Amino acid sequence: TAEQPERVAQPVHGISSYQTLLVSTQDKITTITLNRPQKKNAITVEMYNEIIKALDQAAKDDSVITVFTGSGDYYCSGNDLTNFTKIPEGGMEQMAKDAGELLRQYVKAYIDFPKPLIGVVNGPAVGVSVTVLGLFDVVYATERATFHTPFSQLGQSPEGCSSYTFPKMMGAAKASEMLLFNKKLTATQACEQGLITEVFPDSSFQTEVWTRLKAYAKLPRNSLALSKQLIRTSERDRLHSVNDQEVERLVERWLSDECMQAIMSFFQAKSRL
Amino acid sequence: TAEQPERVAQPVHGISSYQTLLVSTQDKITTITLNRPQKKNAITVEMYNEIIKALDQAAKDDSVITVFTGSGDYYCSGNDLTNFTKIPEGGMEQMAKDAGELLRQYVKAYIDFPKPLIGVVNGPAVGVSVTVLGLFDVVYATERATFHTPFSQLGQSPEGCSSYTFPKMMGAAKASEMLLFNKKLTATQACEQGLITEVFPDSSFQTEVWTRLKAYAKLPRNSLALSKQLIRTSERDRLHSVNDQEVERLVERWLSDECMQAIMSFFQAKSRL
Amino acid sequence: TAEQPERVAQPVHGISSYQTLLVSTQDKITTITLNRPQKKNAITVEMYNEIIKALDQAAKDDSVITVFTGSGDYYCSGNDLTNFTKIPEGGMEQMAKDAGELLRQYVKAYIDFPKPLIGVVNGPAVGVSVTVLGLFDVVYATERATFHTPFSQLGQSPEGCSSYTFPKMMGAAKASEMLLFNKKLTATQACEQGLITEVFPDSSFQTEVWTRLKAYAKLPRNSLALSKQLIRTSERDRLHSVNDQEVERLVERWLSDECMQAIMSFFQAKSRL
Repeated sequence: TAEQPERVAQPVHGISSYQTLLVSTQDKITTITLNRPQKKNAITVEMYNEIIKALDQAAKDDSVITVFTGSGDYYCSGNDLTNFTKIPEGGMEQMAKDAGELLRQYVKAYIDFPKPLIGVVNGPAVGVSVTVLGLFDVVYATERATFHTPFSQLGQSPEGCSSYTFPKMMGAAKASEMLLFNKKLTATQACEQGLITEVFPDSSFQTEVWTRLKAYAKLPRNSLALSKQLIRTSERDRLHSVNDQEVERLVERWLSDECMQAIMSFFQAKSRL
Repeated sequence: TAEQPERVAQPVHGISSYQTLLVSTQDKITTITLNRPQKKNAITVEMYNEIIKALDQAAKDDSVITVFTGSGDYYCSGNDLTNFTKIPEGGMEQMAKDAGELLRQYVKAYIDFPKPLIGVVNGPAVGVSVTVLGLFDVVYATERATFHTPFSQLGQSPEGCSSYTFPKMMGAAKASEMLLFNKKLTATQACEQGLITEVFPDSSFQTEVWTRLKAYAKLPRNSLALSKQLIRTSERDRLHSVNDQEVERLVERWLSDECMQAIMSFFQAKSRL
Repeated sequence: TAEQPERVAQPVHGISSYQTLLVSTQDKITTITLNRPQKKNAITVEMYNEIIKALDQAAKDDSVITVFTGSGDYYCSGNDLTNFTKIPEGGMEQMAKDAGELLRQYVKAYIDFPKPLIGVVNGPAVGVSVTVLGLFDVVYATERATFHTPFSQLGQSPEGCSSYTFPKMMGAAKASEMLLFNKKLTATQACEQGLITEVFPDSSFQTEVWTRLKAYAKLPRNSLALSKQLIRTSERDRLHSVNDQEVERLVERWLSDECMQAIMSFFQAKSRL
């Protein structure tokens, strides 16, 4: 497994008030680390809300770039399916509606993020943690990383703007194999398809990547932010519209028999282990 | 040459009422096979109409995915140029107008197809059979396949939405070499450019591909169809508009001296063989 | 270094009235050659104006294709930073406004160019000479070429429509490493990312490329021009809008402290050599 980044051990500026994340700012870099390694950093409702809050704070602090990564061997195993087991008073419809609105706000936070956002993918990535990478500016991955979006297996449909960003970056023929037919990509394949900027050997991953990140953070701050916004501007409206459509479709999916059966099968298989 | 797919020999559900195609539904897969191997599956006026009809029926039947392929050693040699030799009463202008409307309806059938559409490219592909691949969801090809769009050689211009889908998937620099300067791609090059999802050795092509297709057809049907439509939705209007513009331009081209001379030269060269 | 193209020595049709360019038409090919090799073909204000004029004339002459290249070992080292040292009576604000309008017209000339435009990249390319390649139809490069857009290093932001064309062709993850973080690409990397059509050994570069170009110039002239325009049509408005936004942002940048300090540091470093 990858060595721990040296920087985590150093004193940090800013106090982390998060339960499920580590958030620190140092050397003009704000780092948001998913911190639920015992569950492969699966994203709970609380985590979605904390990530939205952390991105909002990173947008406003004095850092030059923002880094997103995971603790432990996994980057992120995606949406925690136990989110679907806490049925509120309003029943399934209310649950689907609430989950949709949370997802919409979550993806919106990435679309509107005003500074360079860099993914440091330290291990396997699944589901929504893969799809939102299409909204990052740069993504570095260890060779151990894999990228998997098994939506149709679970009776669901793509989110994170991937129904737009994936065909745009890799062409429909490659994107559909991932988004419709659950193809899992290696880090090298993801790099060839444009999802990932560069792949590194696991042994030197943290060292090589952080050397670069520290150099990036010394570049003129406004120039970087304004250049990133310039790139985003020409498709921001489109991304918001895609996000809305994807969420609307998913809310329908979550209430469908196909999806309920697929999720129940998932838990049954798990409980038999 | 590739082995015949085993499945063709099995009894099929649904009666094929087509003269130029084989159409069958089995294992929740509807397969449309161009069946004019003695002419390298060149598309006649009758075939255009039958393919439109077959796609319309596949859209409505209970299959989960639809497969498009060719019989014999060729996938498809493109538009049958003898289509231009049957001049109707209205003269050349009427012929160009009719051919344009037929092409418009043909490409429209691909744009609006509501289920996953998978190309199984069993050999060389030319012209409109290459360009519409940009409207497929997944495309698998044998290593023997080539991809050639010699429009300018024939005084014509791109169709099948390729003037939009090709630059989008491979960048203008690669797309223009194909669409303007008649570059013929190998299967491997087409895969690198994103036109093709994956290339297979010819000896195992049918076996490997059909193993995958049968697995795909077992996935939740609505999830697949709705996910495909979600991907298509965000550019459907654009694709229809591009199709209209391409056809308008081609109708003008067909009536130009450049094009008439190029097509006459084609037939003269052929008659001398 | 690459051999001189044979054709330059031959008598040419048309009289070149340019101070900073060589412009000639032969074999139905108009060639525009940046001719300031002692300054690595850095683009002065005079050169911007002459290139706009040369593109305008090439658009109207009877050539079939237009070729853009550089003389000497460099393709082009980008914007000549001495352009920023000639401050007019209106002060810095007037200078920034004038420079912005010139850049806007310069990029517009590429967006609206009506014939196939082919880049023959004979050596390293920097800045605006790299970004406008996204508006070319085909780009051939020697293996000696490199592609570098150090905007943020100079406190500036992307131009030449690269904030739109680069993410479109290579995905955001690769484009941002170039446009935000100054990553310099080799010719092979630029080819993999879709910026370049093909890379050639330096020893045979000119011979191989000009053999192709001469063949291209024999194709039907109208078919080529109309096909190129068809490809461009579907995004022309978008490109003009992106150009306007990029220039507006750059004019602000040029007047910022970040940018002024970065450019002064550049000249100080240079003066110490």
